[in-house]
Amino acid sequence: MATEYLGIDIGGTNVKMGIVEAETGNISNFYSHDTGDWRKSGHFVKSLGDAISVQLKQNPEVSKCGIGVPGLITRDRQSLIEITAIPEIDGISVIPELKDRFKGKDFFLENDANAAALGEYYFGEGDVPEDYIFVTLGTGVGGAAIIDKTVFKGGGGNAMEPGHMPSKNGRVLERNIGKVELLNLATDMRAAWTGETVLVADGTISTMGLVSAATEGDKLALEIFEEVGTLLGDGLISMIRILDINTILIGGGLSASFEYILPAINKQIEFWLSPYYKKGLSIKRATLANDAGLLGAASLCF
Amino acid sequence: MATEYLGIDIGGTNVKMGIVEAETGNISNFYSHDTGDWRKSGHFVKSLGDAISVQLKQNPEVSKCGIGVPGLITRDRQSLIEITAIPEIDGISVIPELKDRFKGKDFFLENDANAAALGEYYFGEGDVPEDYIFVTLGTGVGGAAIIDKTVFKGGGGNAMEPGHMPSKNGRVLERNIGKVELLNLATDMRAAWTGETVLVADGTISTMGLVSAATEGDKLALEIFEEVGTLLGDGLISMIRILDINTILIGGGLSASFEYILPAINKQIEFWLSPYYKKGLSIKRATLANDAGLLGAASLCF
Repeated sequence: MATEYLGIDIGGTNVKMGIVEAETGNISNFYSHDTGDWRKSGHFVKSLGDAISVQLKQNPEVSKCGIGVPGLITRDRQSLIEITAIPEIDGISVIPELKDRFKGKDFFLENDANAAALGEYYFGEGDVPEDYIFVTLGTGVGGAAIIDKTVFKGGGGNAMEPGHMPSKNGRVLERNIGKVELLNLATDMRAAWTGETVLVADGTISTMGLVSAATEGDKLALEIFEEVGTLLGDGLISMIRILDINTILIGGGLSASFEYILPAINKQIEFWLSPYYKKGLSIKRATLANDAGLLGAASLCF
Repeated sequence: MATEYLGIDIGGTNVKMGIVEAETGNISNFYSHDTGDWRKSGHFVKSLGDAISVQLKQNPEVSKCGIGVPGLITRDRQSLIEITAIPEIDGISVIPELKDRFKGKDFFLENDANAAALGEYYFGEGDVPEDYIFVTLGTGVGGAAIIDKTVFKGGGGNAMEPGHMPSKNGRVLERNIGKVELLNLATDMRAAWTGETVLVADGTISTMGLVSAATEGDKLALEIFEEVGTLLGDGLISMIRILDINTILIGGGLSASFEYILPAINKQIEFWLSPYYKKGLSIKRATLANDAGLLGAASLCF
């Protein structure tokens, strides 16, 4: 019988869980629970345990469970430190609690971006090496580093916050190229634009509209993504120089713009890096998309 | 009898070696060989072996030898990749060669900045934690990260090149605050300065002169170091966010200016970092000074 793991992706809106087949990444018994309901109950961790209990009853052969959480956790991966979206669980030693309730089962905790990054190694399409930098572009700019097919924890346990590196204009990177900031940038550049463009001028540009315009070769849309790629590129150079890793995977919702930000990233690489780093350097789009969180959580069980 | 290690610090000018007492860091049997002479002989590694042979004959109880080199090495710490100052030894598998010549002895290879960083843990004054970032300010800006009292190698084996992170004016950090650039900056700021200052106006400002002026409270000198601290601070923030380490040791010749660059670094920390990182954050001057290379090399034997 195939090895199966329980993967759990705890988010600010939903807690998604499902049984993941280790060899294929096929997901079965998928459930999405409402995070808000569990919070209102005042018993978030008990609700989590109840949902796990149902899963394990239905899948008694599963002995390992991986959990991804959106926030800071302890270096020993036993406890939560700061989960901004669910602050009432801060400080809870969730792994010992679950192990105590489910004797004989193993539980693994990880930050959700770290888990999603690791998921690319075990479940992603194509060749993913054992060392890579993973950056997610969305509302914020998150990230992780995988070294020796293991999450890089850094010193305190919560390494890799690329979105909070200093960037242009006295702002951190994600305050320059996060989703809201990208759309603000687009609105500003649209206002100053005198050439042709399909982008609307009434301040309602959407990310989908931007990507669609770029697909059609719209010059303004391409210039906007060039700026994003330039700023992201600077951050990537710093990460490459600090971590000595030259495979980059880019995921998250805004990675739909991957091919339009790539030329500017490549320009930065050409400008800043020496041959040692450029040899074999590879920048790819992450492949797991919507299932990244759940598959990432399951990948903690390997 | 006390445990003793052979420490070897290979530099572009000298190869320094000596017997280091593990408990105290006392150095005996110190020799400094001329790197140029060994290079001219055309047998650099053989000369190194001969010098080691003499040391081990005189100190037969020594069974471990640590070697620091100024350049890139393989991730398995067996071979040299790119030693800019001594290019003829690039690609040599120096550790297997030495082990073959000296049966029963152990040899450890590390980049010199990494070794110097680790030396602070074993031989530095005061309390050094098991995780820290180490930055050297000198002709260039070098660095290392120690995690779990071990050199952080990153993905490819040569992590931590803080001097090559993008900085202001389209330049990497060390092209803004390396020794030459610092003195150019000082000359430029002196030319534009209309207030009082003890700094000379004829383009011959020295680093010693700068530090001495700052010691006397010279406003221009302090402004120059403020700029250095601001740029270094930006780089440190990125490292802290990527590595989740909040103890910083600053070494190298220009660290004589430590107390004058510190206020600007602290300002950057206050501006960019969240409480998670600021809690327990500590920035200190490294303590090993001139012996850092040799003691660092010996510390590889622990």
